[in-house]
Amino acid sequence: MKKKANPGRSMLRHVLVVSIALNVSFILRIMLYETHQHQQQTHHHHQSSFSLSSSSSSSSSTRTTRRRSSSSIVVNSTRDEDHLHSPDKDRLINLDHGDPRMYERYWRKRGEKASITIPGWQSMSYFSEGEKICWFMESELAEEVVRLHNLVGNAVTQGRHIVVGTGSSQLFLAALYALSPTTHQQPPITVLSALPYYSSYPSMTDYQKSGLYKWGGDAESYDGEKDGPYIELVTSPNNPDGYTRESVVKNKTHGFFIHDLAYYWPQYTPISYPSDHDLSLFTLSKSTGHAATRIGWALVKDPAVAKKMTKFIELNTIGVSKDSQLRAAKILKAVSDSSEEEEFFKYSYEVMSQRWKQLREAVQGNALFTLPNFSPGFCTFFNRQTHPQPAFLWLKCEGEIEDCASFLRQHKILSRSGERFGVSPKYVRISMVDTHENFMEFIERLSSIHL
Amino acid sequence: MKKKANPGRSMLRHVLVVSIALNVSFILRIMLYETHQHQQQTHHHHQSSFSLSSSSSSSSSTRTTRRRSSSSIVVNSTRDEDHLHSPDKDRLINLDHGDPRMYERYWRKRGEKASITIPGWQSMSYFSEGEKICWFMESELAEEVVRLHNLVGNAVTQGRHIVVGTGSSQLFLAALYALSPTTHQQPPITVLSALPYYSSYPSMTDYQKSGLYKWGGDAESYDGEKDGPYIELVTSPNNPDGYTRESVVKNKTHGFFIHDLAYYWPQYTPISYPSDHDLSLFTLSKSTGHAATRIGWALVKDPAVAKKMTKFIELNTIGVSKDSQLRAAKILKAVSDSSEEEEFFKYSYEVMSQRWKQLREAVQGNALFTLPNFSPGFCTFFNRQTHPQPAFLWLKCEGEIEDCASFLRQHKILSRSGERFGVSPKYVRISMVDTHENFMEFIERLSSIHL
Repeated sequence: MKKKANPGRSMLRHVLVVSIALNVSFILRIMLYETHQHQQQTHHHHQSSFSLSSSSSSSSSTRTTRRRSSSSIVVNSTRDEDHLHSPDKDRLINLDHGDPRMYERYWRKRGEKASITIPGWQSMSYFSEGEKICWFMESELAEEVVRLHNLVGNAVTQGRHIVVGTGSSQLFLAALYALSPTTHQQPPITVLSALPYYSSYPSMTDYQKSGLYKWGGDAESYDGEKDGPYIELVTSPNNPDGYTRESVVKNKTHGFFIHDLAYYWPQYTPISYPSDHDLSLFTLSKSTGHAATRIGWALVKDPAVAKKMTKFIELNTIGVSKDSQLRAAKILKAVSDSSEEEEFFKYSYEVMSQRWKQLREAVQGNALFTLPNFSPGFCTFFNRQTHPQPAFLWLKCEGEIEDCASFLRQHKILSRSGERFGVSPKYVRISMVDTHENFMEFIERLSSIHL
Repeated sequence: MKKKANPGRSMLRHVLVVSIALNVSFILRIMLYETHQHQQQTHHHHQSSFSLSSSSSSSSSTRTTRRRSSSSIVVNSTRDEDHLHSPDKDRLINLDHGDPRMYERYWRKRGEKASITIPGWQSMSYFSEGEKICWFMESELAEEVVRLHNLVGNAVTQGRHIVVGTGSSQLFLAALYALSPTTHQQPPITVLSALPYYSSYPSMTDYQKSGLYKWGGDAESYDGEKDGPYIELVTSPNNPDGYTRESVVKNKTHGFFIHDLAYYWPQYTPISYPSDHDLSLFTLSKSTGHAATRIGWALVKDPAVAKKMTKFIELNTIGVSKDSQLRAAKILKAVSDSSEEEEFFKYSYEVMSQRWKQLREAVQGNALFTLPNFSPGFCTFFNRQTHPQPAFLWLKCEGEIEDCASFLRQHKILSRSGERFGVSPKYVRISMVDTHENFMEFIERLSSIHL
């Protein structure tokens, strides 16, 4: 059974009890399972429950031992992963979606600091206060967005209008709408992205059969001069492959650009400079893991574009859930407010780092699989060199395996085929941000695959 | 300043204090301002704070007295209406939108029972549990929707699939998408509604320039046989005029129907029978007043249509805010759970009844204005005859006033012109569900307009 929000004081008391229980459990876990990995991580000054829990079972053998030796920790970890049924070998591990359930552990540890209470009479009106283009945006969300970007250093916020959306998906559609030609005679503008591109871009662009814009495929083969006006989607780090990207269309005179920066956060990639584009998109789903809150935001230079995006959202959904906006503000605030010990990005970086390490170990020497190779870069946020460790693994099956997704499916791993991203089915995309249990099971299965 | 949600125990303590303070204030108000209207209302067995507060200032003179005599009540009423500035005669009363702020008083009185607390680690995953077509819908919301419809008797829920949306706007678009022809060769299907129709229908249908559907205007002049396939929007009670409606297109063989039942609730109209359509839309905004929560739901007979609507929402916003779904479930539960004394629909019916009475008194004998005339009907929910008392006033300016909206604008009343609803500018739509202060100010201004 999944735990749902229950209000009132009894709930709060319950939360307190669970929180204390969890703390006790984490301390126990630290005492029992401190592994050599952590002694090696010299950059961690504070060995707290925050920096340790994610790697409490750093190899499958440790994990099996743990499962046998201490029932309290097993209970803890199953409680952590709601969707998990028995750790049956026949269970299909679904890593097709990028469901960011990895982050639940962190937020559980932060406890009440990230909780929100909304009384029945609050946030009822369609309208929000303040003089801004996006009339339905809650000011405190806008403030926390600016604050976090300034703290992380991943985006210039000065001279930008913020538009809030129901996830960055809605903002993507709003941006297409806003950047499309306004005169009725013009043909639909072409929407492009370099291969491999996010699998949802084509269907999101075309499902309404809009006369304003249409999917045009690979941006690399497009010439702005010859082929006419276009909108290029620049996803950086890229989904699915994790590489840093820039615009690739030749002759950019007639081009508009949407920078999808969902993964431009320190846990995934070195923050080399504050992004500074005309229109960029961010989302709570991939930054803090709150996917179901459906909150994204756009940083927009041109007020006319921000206005048209706002109009789109008005016609599409008459604004964006205030409950979620308030929750998002609270979550972002908790990230910005976190002490060094409980620092969100440090924690997330460590978990990702651990996972990528385990992954590389699992396929090392296995000629069946090729992983992407990333160059390290200086991260201004951590003030040191870091490695890209994307939210997705872009895996290539080598040799005679032509359909990598089907091959992995035989091993009960559900991935998304390269074909969905416009390239060869020898590639698959695999989520690296699922629950700890699912990730460990995935590593175990991957390790066992040999020719 | 608008009050925002603050979490944690200190907030809860604060809520408790405010709640107690409000209760004291309401009791005071009852003692001081019980008016003759309430002694006349013989059907009210319980003279509680719930049945009295809405009409505590039943005429503008009582209100002025009140404002002078008791500062505590002035504080209370300004706290109640956040957007209210000074009751300056030059202030523009904005009744253009149907912002349902009238309901805030009720929910304030219900206090914590309708509050929700969401811990930081809950509701993170995109997915919801249970085997249902709408994969992102929270089960407890679906349960409360069914429970409330069964209690109110306004919709058949058996044999229906529920699809949750970001307000009913998104569901409207999802329904257009789902009912449109699937083969690529077919021209866009025509979307119709009888005059006067909801002002947003044309722009919502056409803003994407979709090749799937296009706005066709008045349903009365359409012939299904001659003019081809169509989708008819049947809004009942109708927005803007409040009348009960049925499909009007001639020769319905090739027709699809979307029943927009946003206002089919006992406070607005007699519930004569449970609606029983292929596809009907409801929304929290107009039923409980929680507009900013952006939750609507569709009751859909055909699983294939429910599936396509779900797909639309997936491509549009990848689901619907879980925070808002959980809050909506809590709010609907509070409505269903309410005791006779605090009964939501009884309270809302009384407020609406009071408002329509005051409105009719204000224009009585004034040849400038004509109001719609409704026939009473038997309401199965209240088990007696009730009168329609719509959420909007559909006002006609008589004589030489050709542009009613401009005329009212001179008297600092902002309304929406009949032209927006496809008819003459001699008509305007005016919200009847705004704050008490705004409504009273509107009545005062309307009363003072004479030739």
